[in-house]
Amino acid sequence: MEESLSLKRSIIKYQDTQLLETEDEIVIEFPLTIMINGQEFATMVCSPFHLEELVIGFLASEGVIRFRKEIKDFKLDIGAGFAHIELIQDKFVSQQTFSKRFIGSCCGKSRQFYFQNDVRTAKTSMSKTKITAEQCIQLMKKMQSESIVFKQTGGVHNAALCSSDELIVSRTDIGRHNALDKLFGYSLLNQISVKDKILVFSGRISSEILTKAAKIGVGIVLSKSAPTDLAIKLAEDLNITAVGFIRNGSFNIYSHPERIILENNEEESK
Amino acid sequence: MEESLSLKRSIIKYQDTQLLETEDEIVIEFPLTIMINGQEFATMVCSPFHLEELVIGFLASEGVIRFRKEIKDFKLDIGAGFAHIELIQDKFVSQQTFSKRFIGSCCGKSRQFYFQNDVRTAKTSMSKTKITAEQCIQLMKKMQSESIVFKQTGGVHNAALCSSDELIVSRTDIGRHNALDKLFGYSLLNQISVKDKILVFSGRISSEILTKAAKIGVGIVLSKSAPTDLAIKLAEDLNITAVGFIRNGSFNIYSHPERIILENNEEESK
Repeated sequence: MEESLSLKRSIIKYQDTQLLETEDEIVIEFPLTIMINGQEFATMVCSPFHLEELVIGFLASEGVIRFRKEIKDFKLDIGAGFAHIELIQDKFVSQQTFSKRFIGSCCGKSRQFYFQNDVRTAKTSMSKTKITAEQCIQLMKKMQSESIVFKQTGGVHNAALCSSDELIVSRTDIGRHNALDKLFGYSLLNQISVKDKILVFSGRISSEILTKAAKIGVGIVLSKSAPTDLAIKLAEDLNITAVGFIRNGSFNIYSHPERIILENNEEESK
Repeated sequence: MEESLSLKRSIIKYQDTQLLETEDEIVIEFPLTIMINGQEFATMVCSPFHLEELVIGFLASEGVIRFRKEIKDFKLDIGAGFAHIELIQDKFVSQQTFSKRFIGSCCGKSRQFYFQNDVRTAKTSMSKTKITAEQCIQLMKKMQSESIVFKQTGGVHNAALCSSDELIVSRTDIGRHNALDKLFGYSLLNQISVKDKILVFSGRISSEILTKAAKIGVGIVLSKSAPTDLAIKLAEDLNITAVGFIRNGSFNIYSHPERIILENNEEESK
């Protein structure tokens, strides 16, 4: 699985005032074009594995499908870099519609969405899951220990879908959004209920990442990095708990802190 | 200028088994929609300053304009998050055309472009500029000392356009591509010749970043981080010198090493 994330290449290294030829591990970037019912839908660059998860997660995220069963046929042409999708419904899906700017009725006061399709697909979280501060720290540690490749090549993003105690699935990609789309695709392919799950992410929580978390359906997002102001506003609106800067045993809670508790009730009742 | 990159917000911090309310510096993410001749062209999220540079650089990068003078009217509506552009030519510019997949005649052998407009706008570098290894290290240091905000809030990208010795202009954005588009816009607005300049970047050199460097027109790209394999292939094709992992006095050269020399000829002739 991980063998295709990077490849060896000869490079020239400058060190101690010398130039010398050596070998380095280079991360692979793979262009993939998605065709829907014969029409070109989108082209993404990605790490070339878990591509079915990636495409299905991306289509669900864009609001093209809601379930795996809406896809009649799925063919990957790795050589040419194409994914050919046939939907059960013969609808034409234009990328143009999906990236149209959404202008809310009370701009700046209500939802912070800026794309029309996000309004349809990013739902307010109904998650009642709570986790302890210690669980936040442990989940981040677990995700990081899974992502050895990151240390080797530099520059890939890691994301994991977790229960309050365990990693369920962890995915890696050079693209921030792709790592999350792969998790989304995994949850759809394996029909996993996500409402009570936690999303752990290596990168910054931007508005796009937060919106994607809402589309996947989690109530808690944990990150090693910082969120943006727009992401925090979205998290407040969508009832998502955003936690960032999880490092060295401390972290920051940016929205809906009620889901992060100091001690587990079960432990208290012991 | 830098005052609008971030804002203060109250957060809850977990530290030493305690949750306490405190204040944190949060990076701003601003959605900006570009309208061309009354038609919606694109929406981006960005750091809300140097917006004229950003929009002009983006339009040049997408191949919509080549010079500033092709724009008859430029109006920013910061409150609503819109940039209204009127071109001298009343042509309709469809985003759809610009993101169409480009299939080369000899796939995998020739150019690695995957978008049609890149073929028109990313040109092979004719730069004859050479710099010393020590200059590579000094230029990266100079860019990093300019980017204090990065250390404060985490999660913005910095890019600079340099001569072999000095920073000409440095730009910051939460979006990787935006930082480069701002430099591109700056060079067009100030009619700076870029062929002999060097691009210094804080983030990974992806294929998109390398393509953007080719569009701007530089011959040397320096990065603190690693390039992808696709970016290296593009750099080889486009005659661009890609240098990465510039840290602790060493770095790697991934393509066209002939532009990086050990010592300056002038020094040798002393």
